[in-house]
Amino acid sequence: MALPLSERIPELSALHPADVADELQRIEAPEEALVVLRLLPSRLAALSLAELDPEVMQDLAALLKEEELVELLQFLPPSDTTDIVGELPEVRQEEVLSELPSEVASPVRDLLQYPEDTAGGIMGDEYTTLDARSTIGDALDRLREPERSQHPVSYLYVTDPEERLVGVVSFRDLVLNEPNTPLSEVTNRQVTRLIVSDDQEEIARQFEHYHYLALPVVDESDRLVGVVEANDALEIAQEEATEDMQLMVGLSGEERALTPWHRSIGRRLPWLYVNLTTAFAAAMVVSAFEETIAQWTVLAVFLPIIAGQGGNAGMQTLTIIIRDIALGELNPGDGRRALMKELCIALINGIAIGLVVGLISFLWKDNPTLGWVVGIAMVMTQLTAALAGVLIPLTLRAIRVDPALASSIFLTTATDIGGFLFFLWLASYALERL
Amino acid sequence: MALPLSERIPELSALHPADVADELQRIEAPEEALVVLRLLPSRLAALSLAELDPEVMQDLAALLKEEELVELLQFLPPSDTTDIVGELPEVRQEEVLSELPSEVASPVRDLLQYPEDTAGGIMGDEYTTLDARSTIGDALDRLREPERSQHPVSYLYVTDPEERLVGVVSFRDLVLNEPNTPLSEVTNRQVTRLIVSDDQEEIARQFEHYHYLALPVVDESDRLVGVVEANDALEIAQEEATEDMQLMVGLSGEERALTPWHRSIGRRLPWLYVNLTTAFAAAMVVSAFEETIAQWTVLAVFLPIIAGQGGNAGMQTLTIIIRDIALGELNPGDGRRALMKELCIALINGIAIGLVVGLISFLWKDNPTLGWVVGIAMVMTQLTAALAGVLIPLTLRAIRVDPALASSIFLTTATDIGGFLFFLWLASYALERL
Repeated sequence: MALPLSERIPELSALHPADVADELQRIEAPEEALVVLRLLPSRLAALSLAELDPEVMQDLAALLKEEELVELLQFLPPSDTTDIVGELPEVRQEEVLSELPSEVASPVRDLLQYPEDTAGGIMGDEYTTLDARSTIGDALDRLREPERSQHPVSYLYVTDPEERLVGVVSFRDLVLNEPNTPLSEVTNRQVTRLIVSDDQEEIARQFEHYHYLALPVVDESDRLVGVVEANDALEIAQEEATEDMQLMVGLSGEERALTPWHRSIGRRLPWLYVNLTTAFAAAMVVSAFEETIAQWTVLAVFLPIIAGQGGNAGMQTLTIIIRDIALGELNPGDGRRALMKELCIALINGIAIGLVVGLISFLWKDNPTLGWVVGIAMVMTQLTAALAGVLIPLTLRAIRVDPALASSIFLTTATDIGGFLFFLWLASYALERL
Repeated sequence: MALPLSERIPELSALHPADVADELQRIEAPEEALVVLRLLPSRLAALSLAELDPEVMQDLAALLKEEELVELLQFLPPSDTTDIVGELPEVRQEEVLSELPSEVASPVRDLLQYPEDTAGGIMGDEYTTLDARSTIGDALDRLREPERSQHPVSYLYVTDPEERLVGVVSFRDLVLNEPNTPLSEVTNRQVTRLIVSDDQEEIARQFEHYHYLALPVVDESDRLVGVVEANDALEIAQEEATEDMQLMVGLSGEERALTPWHRSIGRRLPWLYVNLTTAFAAAMVVSAFEETIAQWTVLAVFLPIIAGQGGNAGMQTLTIIIRDIALGELNPGDGRRALMKELCIALINGIAIGLVVGLISFLWKDNPTLGWVVGIAMVMTQLTAALAGVLIPLTLRAIRVDPALASSIFLTTATDIGGFLFFLWLASYALERL
C-alpha cells in the first residue's frame, strides 16, 4: 500500500505544482485533499490550487477559510487569482476581494467580468507595456525593473497615453538601435489582436491555423488588457476536443476516469434516459411489424446486423463532420458538398456490404428471398446513415446548439428507425407477394 | 458561381499562406490545384505548399517538376523543406536534395532521419545558439546579425564547443548586465529538454501539463538540434484528438469532410467489414434463441432497446477512458479503480433504467414477465457495457495498439452479445418455468 498523501509531504514538495495538482485530484474526498493542501508550503499550495481542474478547485476553495485563501492568493498573478475567486459563490467573492490589497483586488475585479470561455477569461498578464513616446533607452530601463518576470517570451507592446495598443517592438530592435532612438521608429504597427469577447474555440483555431505564439488582447476601446499565448490555446484545444468527444456520446461536463462515481451518475443517467426514449421509438417500428416477425422469425436475427452496420457507418460520417466543424474546416456553404460525398460513399459501401450480407444470409438460412431483402435493406440503411450523419450536426449548428451534443444518440435512432423500417417493410412485402 | 481559383490569383496573393493552402485543399483535382500553385508568386507558393495537409502536399509535390520544386524550396527553412521532401518517393528525394545547395541539403538530410511523429520530426530551427565561452557583448553582436529572424520568441541557448546544450539565457539578462560579463555567469543551467526520439503525443502532454512555451531538443549526445514550440504542440494535440475520434469509430488516417470520396471508401469499407463480422456474431446469439422468439415474438421488439442502452452506456465509459489515456491522466495502476467506479455507476444506472424499462414494457405489452425479464437484462447489459468500456481500451494499450483503434466496434459487439445473451436466456428461462 502507498502511504497516504498527507505523509508524503516532503516528496510532494519537490514536485511541479501541476504534478501536485494531479495528486490532489486523485484523492476522492475533498476534505482529505484539503488536509494535504494545508500541509504544503504556502507558495506551492497556491500554485497547485491554480492548476486544479475547475471542479476540484471549486471544492477546495469552498472548504478553505477566508484567511487561508487570502494568504494563498498573494502568491498568484491576477489571472490565476481570478480563476480561483471565480469558482466561489458571489457573496464569498466579495468577502475575499475586500481582504486582498487593492492593487491585487482591482485587476481581479476587472478580469472577473469576462466570461471564462472568452479571450478576456483566458488571457494572462505576463507582458511589458512601453509608452509610445519613450525611447529605446527607456524601454531598456523598464526591462531592468526587478519585478519583471523571467517569462521566456517577454513581449514588448507599445501603447499610447490612453493605453490603446499601438504596436509591438522586438528584442532585436532594442539591442540593435541606439538608446536615444524613439520607440515609434522601431514599432511594428501591424499587429494581429484579439478582442476580450472573442470565443476561445475560435482563438484556438486561429493559433493553430496561423501558428501564432502569442496575441495581445484589447478591450472594446482598443486598450491592451492581456496576452493569450500558444500554451493557453493548447489547453483550450484539449478541453474542446474532450468536450466534443464526450458530448457526442451523451456526457455533459468534463468527466475523467477518476471523477467520483456519484458525480458521474448525474451526468450520464439523463442522457441514458434520452437514449431510452429514442430506443423505444426504434422498438415501436419493430412492434409495428410483430406479425411479420411472427411469421418469419429469422428476421429478428438480422435486426442487430442492420442496426450495427447503420450505426457504425453513421458514426464514421458524424465524427468527420463534427471534427471538421470544430476545427473550422467546414464552412457553412460546404454542407451540400459534404452530403453529396457521403451519399456517394454510402451507395458504394452499401452495395459492397449489401452483396456480402445478402449472400451470407442466403447461404446461412438457405433462403434467397431473405438474401435480397437483407441486401437491399443494407443499402438503404447506409444511405440513411449518411443522411443522418451529415444533417444531425449541421441542424444542431443551425439552431445554435453544439453540433456534438448527444449526436450519437440521435444518429443511432435515425439509423435504427430507418434501417428497421426498410428491412421489415421489404420483408413484409416479400412475404405477401412472393 | 464563384470564379475558378486560377482566375482569382490577385485575390489569393493577398492571403496568408495558411489560407491559400485551405483554398488549394478545396480543389478536388490535384492537377487543377497545380495550375493555381504555378500562377502564384513563388514565395507564396512555397509557403502555401508547406501549409498543406500531408496528403495534398504529397499529391502536389509528385506533380511538380524537379526544377520547380527546387525553386520553391529555396524560400523555406530546413524544417519545412524536410516536410515536403519527406513526402516524395525515396529516389526523387535524392534527386531533389542533390539539386539543392549543400548548406540547405545538409540540414534537411539530418532532419529526414527523424520519424515524423517524434521531437526530431516536428522541431523547428528558429533559435539562436551562443558559445558558453563568449560574453554578453558577443551575444548582442550575434543578435545584430542581419539574418536573425524576427521570430517573436528568440530563445538564446548556450552550447559548449561540442554543441552540447549547456543552458538558456534570457533577454532580460542580456540587457541587464555589462557587455563584458561572461555568458556563463548568467546562464540558467536547469533546462528541461526533449530528446529527438520523444513521442509527439507525449510532448503535447508535457506542454499542456507544464505550460511550456518552447523546449530545446537534443540528440543522443545531448547536442542541441532544434526547438519545439507550444504552437507545434497545439497542432499535434489537434491531430491526435482527430485521430483518436476517428480511430474509435473505424476510420483510418486523417479524413476530412471534403476528402475526395474515392479516398474515403478505402478507409471506411474495411472497418465496416470488420463491424459486419462482429454484427454476425451478435446475430448468431439471436439465432440460437430463434425458437424462443418464435414462441414469444415480442422479444424481437426489445432487442433494439437492449442494444441501444448497452451501446450508449458503453460509449460513455469508453470515451472517458480513451480520452484520459490520451491526455496522460490514467496511469497504468488506475485501471482497477476506474473499473470499480464504472461497475458501480453501471449498477446504479442499470437499476434506474431497468425499473423504468421494466415498468414500461409491462404496461405496453401488458405482460409482467416481460417486464422483469427486460428490467433484469438491462442491469446486466449496463454491467457488460462498463466492463467492455474499460477493458477494451486497456487491453489494446496493453498489447501496444492505439487504445482508440476500432474500439467502438469492439464495444458494441460486446454489449450486443452480452445484452442479447442475458435477455434471451432470461426470456427462455421464463418461458420454460413460468
